[in-house]
Amino acid sequence: MKACAIVRAGGAEVFQMREMPTSTPAPNQILVRVSACAINPVDCKIRKGLVDIPYQYPLILGYDVSGVVETVGEGATNFKPGDSVFYCGPINLPGGYAEYHIVDQRLVMPKPFNLSHVEAASIPLVGLTAWEALFERGAITIGETILIQGGGGGVGSMAIQLAKWAGLTIFATDKTENGAFVRELGADYFIDYLKDDFLGKVKDLTKGRGVDVVFDTVGGETLARSFEAVRRDGRVVSIVEERKPMNLIPLFLRNATFHYEFMALAMTYGEFDHKRTVLSYLSTLIERNFICPVVKRTYPLAQAAEAHDCLENNRVPGKIVLEIRT
Amino acid sequence: MKACAIVRAGGAEVFQMREMPTSTPAPNQILVRVSACAINPVDCKIRKGLVDIPYQYPLILGYDVSGVVETVGEGATNFKPGDSVFYCGPINLPGGYAEYHIVDQRLVMPKPFNLSHVEAASIPLVGLTAWEALFERGAITIGETILIQGGGGGVGSMAIQLAKWAGLTIFATDKTENGAFVRELGADYFIDYLKDDFLGKVKDLTKGRGVDVVFDTVGGETLARSFEAVRRDGRVVSIVEERKPMNLIPLFLRNATFHYEFMALAMTYGEFDHKRTVLSYLSTLIERNFICPVVKRTYPLAQAAEAHDCLENNRVPGKIVLEIRT
Repeated sequence: MKACAIVRAGGAEVFQMREMPTSTPAPNQILVRVSACAINPVDCKIRKGLVDIPYQYPLILGYDVSGVVETVGEGATNFKPGDSVFYCGPINLPGGYAEYHIVDQRLVMPKPFNLSHVEAASIPLVGLTAWEALFERGAITIGETILIQGGGGGVGSMAIQLAKWAGLTIFATDKTENGAFVRELGADYFIDYLKDDFLGKVKDLTKGRGVDVVFDTVGGETLARSFEAVRRDGRVVSIVEERKPMNLIPLFLRNATFHYEFMALAMTYGEFDHKRTVLSYLSTLIERNFICPVVKRTYPLAQAAEAHDCLENNRVPGKIVLEIRT
Repeated sequence: MKACAIVRAGGAEVFQMREMPTSTPAPNQILVRVSACAINPVDCKIRKGLVDIPYQYPLILGYDVSGVVETVGEGATNFKPGDSVFYCGPINLPGGYAEYHIVDQRLVMPKPFNLSHVEAASIPLVGLTAWEALFERGAITIGETILIQGGGGGVGSMAIQLAKWAGLTIFATDKTENGAFVRELGADYFIDYLKDDFLGKVKDLTKGRGVDVVFDTVGGETLARSFEAVRRDGRVVSIVEERKPMNLIPLFLRNATFHYEFMALAMTYGEFDHKRTVLSYLSTLIERNFICPVVKRTYPLAQAAEAHDCLENNRVPGKIVLEIRT
């Protein structure tokens, strides 16, 4: 099969189109003919060699797949050849920047009927991350206020839609040119971090109280200051692996909670069933039009390097997808 | 009334016995003739001027009171003169190192019938803190494992008993001479931090998995390393206002949660009802002998300075109480 693999850790120049062997599905696995594979920040992190997993090269990246079942392994009775499916695959296994991909059937759901493969591929990783962060960590509840840091990003744009569906009042930060997009997604208040201090804005908008929940997808100083944006007894959730030591005193003074959400972790331990359950929730919301995909750019498989460059330089909000078979 | 007040912020030498006015209870307040008042670390912190509240001197410390109702204010119909009561008072108001104390009736419960006033005074602050930390923050569940850092302290000794009642397996750290006490309270495994590395011990005892929950009452490096003692998806709860910035990466790599528990905070905002509810739970457990007071030393009112010295130098595990009226 054709794959756009990386031959070593490094910049976007490490991608090469390669002919690589197509594997046979083991028991409980399915072989999927990949139609589309979304790009996510974790792909870039693995490409750069920043993820502590002993990868072998050439390595195929890409964990957000939509495609058609080609063959099924022993006992993989949930699916049959020809089924359209979508899923998020484990980051410790080969990915989907390729014509075929092998995956454990316990991670897989039928593709929502109302999405194209490109649209479907844009959902699993960010959808699972936002769902777990908001509902399982932040325990968001109807009527609450939430500040979403980086509302126009892949996870941010899904978080805005999920929080809107759940009945929260949403403050979302992003740069000036993403304001219209963030508002369209459902943010009640757009905070332009290039022009305004988000902490001051949040204090004003909540009459000094702070928000119930902050969901941070930015990290660094944004995360540090997010600790000051929550109300007493509030919750902060972050998905950013922040290496700078953090001052916890603002959390103490608010009797507050900090949650990390590292969605991909459980899958690397072979824990699959929960991801499939959450994916079924996302499918329900998609098929009922409560949430929708936000694909802003597609690239052919051979242009994975260009797709990475686009993501790493924040050229577009929303999602970037490799269209592998049209 | 006689009070042992502090005349300024400082060391234990700032205590002075003073004749001070006895207030009249405002609406919803009661005047309590204090029988006993427990000493807590927050008393020492306020004495040293480390709590950011604009106190006036002379200041009466002490927030753990057991005594007898003397008079009741307008509408304070829960109690009548002669009732034996116990409670934790707000840290922003005058305390109970005195013959009389004024408190909002919404904070107050009848004294458990099976405790003396000295014993009852030792319960509220540490009991409320441990309850909120374990059940409301850490969400501990029967069958789980918990590491309690500083198991012999006031809060730690209450936490061990509550975790035991709740059906957890308890690892508790403390210094060598407190080992027998910590075991008697219900710790399944005592970890002597003077002799052993707690992280190695926890890894061994949990077969490398880590504990479900860590409850930290120590702070500093103990808190930092507690982040490495929890399992994947685990929870860390701390009550220590830690000023050193903390490395959060161990939490990220475990998809873990960090909760602060600052029990006294809500009361300073006039939120009282929840504290009384939790105090009623503690009363139930005390009257049914699931948990018991651990008073290790008593002092007369005039020796508040000696009592602070005893607490600050960790001379005894468990609780220290001022016996004001015998």
